[in-house]
Amino acid sequence: MFYQVERGITMKEGRIYNFNPGPAALPLPVLEEVQKDLLNYKGEGISILEMSHRSKTFDGIIKDAERLLKEIMDIPQNYKVLFMQGGATLQFAAVPLNLIGEGQFAEYVNTGSWSKKAIQEAQKLGKKVNVVASSEDESFSYIPGDIKVSPNAAYLHITSNNTIFGTQFQQFPETGDVALIADMSSDIACRKIDVSKFALIYAGAQKNMGPSGVTVVIIREDLLEKSPDNIPTMTSYKIIGGKDSLYNTPPTFAVYIVKLVLEWMKAQGGLEKIEQINRQKAGLIYDALDQSSFYRGTARPDSRSLMNVTFRLPSEELEKKFVAEALENGMLGLKGHRSVGGIRASIYNAVPMEAVEKLVDFMKKFEKANS
Amino acid sequence: MFYQVERGITMKEGRIYNFNPGPAALPLPVLEEVQKDLLNYKGEGISILEMSHRSKTFDGIIKDAERLLKEIMDIPQNYKVLFMQGGATLQFAAVPLNLIGEGQFAEYVNTGSWSKKAIQEAQKLGKKVNVVASSEDESFSYIPGDIKVSPNAAYLHITSNNTIFGTQFQQFPETGDVALIADMSSDIACRKIDVSKFALIYAGAQKNMGPSGVTVVIIREDLLEKSPDNIPTMTSYKIIGGKDSLYNTPPTFAVYIVKLVLEWMKAQGGLEKIEQINRQKAGLIYDALDQSSFYRGTARPDSRSLMNVTFRLPSEELEKKFVAEALENGMLGLKGHRSVGGIRASIYNAVPMEAVEKLVDFMKKFEKANS
Repeated sequence: MFYQVERGITMKEGRIYNFNPGPAALPLPVLEEVQKDLLNYKGEGISILEMSHRSKTFDGIIKDAERLLKEIMDIPQNYKVLFMQGGATLQFAAVPLNLIGEGQFAEYVNTGSWSKKAIQEAQKLGKKVNVVASSEDESFSYIPGDIKVSPNAAYLHITSNNTIFGTQFQQFPETGDVALIADMSSDIACRKIDVSKFALIYAGAQKNMGPSGVTVVIIREDLLEKSPDNIPTMTSYKIIGGKDSLYNTPPTFAVYIVKLVLEWMKAQGGLEKIEQINRQKAGLIYDALDQSSFYRGTARPDSRSLMNVTFRLPSEELEKKFVAEALENGMLGLKGHRSVGGIRASIYNAVPMEAVEKLVDFMKKFEKANS
Repeated sequence: MFYQVERGITMKEGRIYNFNPGPAALPLPVLEEVQKDLLNYKGEGISILEMSHRSKTFDGIIKDAERLLKEIMDIPQNYKVLFMQGGATLQFAAVPLNLIGEGQFAEYVNTGSWSKKAIQEAQKLGKKVNVVASSEDESFSYIPGDIKVSPNAAYLHITSNNTIFGTQFQQFPETGDVALIADMSSDIACRKIDVSKFALIYAGAQKNMGPSGVTVVIIREDLLEKSPDNIPTMTSYKIIGGKDSLYNTPPTFAVYIVKLVLEWMKAQGGLEKIEQINRQKAGLIYDALDQSSFYRGTARPDSRSLMNVTFRLPSEELEKKFVAEALENGMLGLKGHRSVGGIRASIYNAVPMEAVEKLVDFMKKFEKANS
């Protein structure tokens, strides 16, 4: 139903190029569809915002969203897709509460701020956690290799993409029978992956999937049975999964947009095509970094993210000037995370090639003018 | 900025009258504003859906929402307004986790399905709970009077309006020094109340405040200090309050709509005027029930809700016919909750007088045709 991304369309109606790290750019055709139907959804006489989560229409929307995600990510039949609230932060609690039983422990890989928060949340809930690998020794500039997991761990938890540091797992640890769990908030559905290697994947939607306010959880069905009864209902995979994400009122509008984004992804040609475009987009910027002595990429080349490209300029003054001039040229959101500084270009699925081309062009001009 | 509700405007562009229990009707001017700004928010070049929660613009929106709610509900200065996720269901856990300390207990009033869920959630989290009053003996058709609270209870919890049973507290229990806590999901800001009587009020937004996906929490500041450190971050009033609801990415779009709804409420003349209209609206339907021997209201007259008017017809067949014919006449959402049957007209703030007049007119015609 959506047309392909073409040159020029994001600039329609005074829109600018959005490199925000999240909430982030959405496909323009999705926004147009939302706008068109906002007062009267498909002739039903009410807005989607006013629609009961128990209506046939919404039931179709949430089922479509699950079906489309399974199709696009090639998710095996023995997995369920849940739509939860509370972002990755609630999952940081839900994962250990559901899956670390009495006397058990879990293992974590620490590749940045979000990994750390996941580890700390498990610990403060009284769970035993081992950090089996970390890249903190080099400012989280790489993804550790050769990760070993204890065979009796409840699970191994990784953060597949590190938004702040611009790193991303290129291949995933082999965990044998131990459940592999990934926070994919910032790189879900950016490339083809083998979902069957994971027991559980979760992602706040606000980067590659939709707006903030909904969290996508992909869970292997046998895990649903592990949830103990004495944990908050809204963290229980068994309860939320048992009611197909309709235990209580879900964030209906956010789920609706996720469905539209998935339709748009399918119209783009699915994950194979999207990955190809993402590699081209990221390649353009990394090539520009590698060919320059003015810009310096912060992630080790073997750990570079397809989604968040982080780099530094010769001085903080020049970085400030870069961000300001980029904005004057219609490019928003290029400032690095406040904890690390520098520049960050977040180039999620919905950021079109033309935006990246424009950025690279600007980078070259800026270098020439300021070298 | 919004115009007053006038006759006829809700029927614009094929829209129908929406009596949904929640997610529910929103003011049409709010929807129109959302639609207008959807692709390019106030000339910023991006959608509100794509905007960073750390941007100045969104910071202004969330601060405006807090300020407007404080103004409209006349909330004292020593209270904070939080925007959380997970609906009332997460609050059912958050309240006992934050406020029932080691060796303490809390008391609850049981006035229906949602009270019961709140009680059960506290119990399953291992908290001690006394039910000090209940109307279960008469199918929750009334609000118990003369509620006594133990002076050493951590708090007394009530459900101020019972969506399913059409009952509402007319006055609130006197609790002395004991914290009074209310789930006001279905009647927040429907009438003037003395907020200083409450230690904490929470409400899923999807009835009187906005779309689903955001929960409004009004909390007296001294309570923030009570949160223990070993509870999930997303349930901690101390952490969420300490970061002014920006600990992690909030449901930005839902908060934006809450702000617009509050602006609309202010433009209507504030709570005094809204309460007056709500009493007129509910009065029209209750008068029709009282004057008829065909319809039978299910709530005891002294406990009737301003928000959800529940009634029965002589037979289930007639109820089915009533709901179907009402829909043919442009009135949606009149079916009673699946657990109790019958008819329910949810007439939240955004449901205009004309919708209620049309419903009462239809009720009279239906009675005549089917008596």
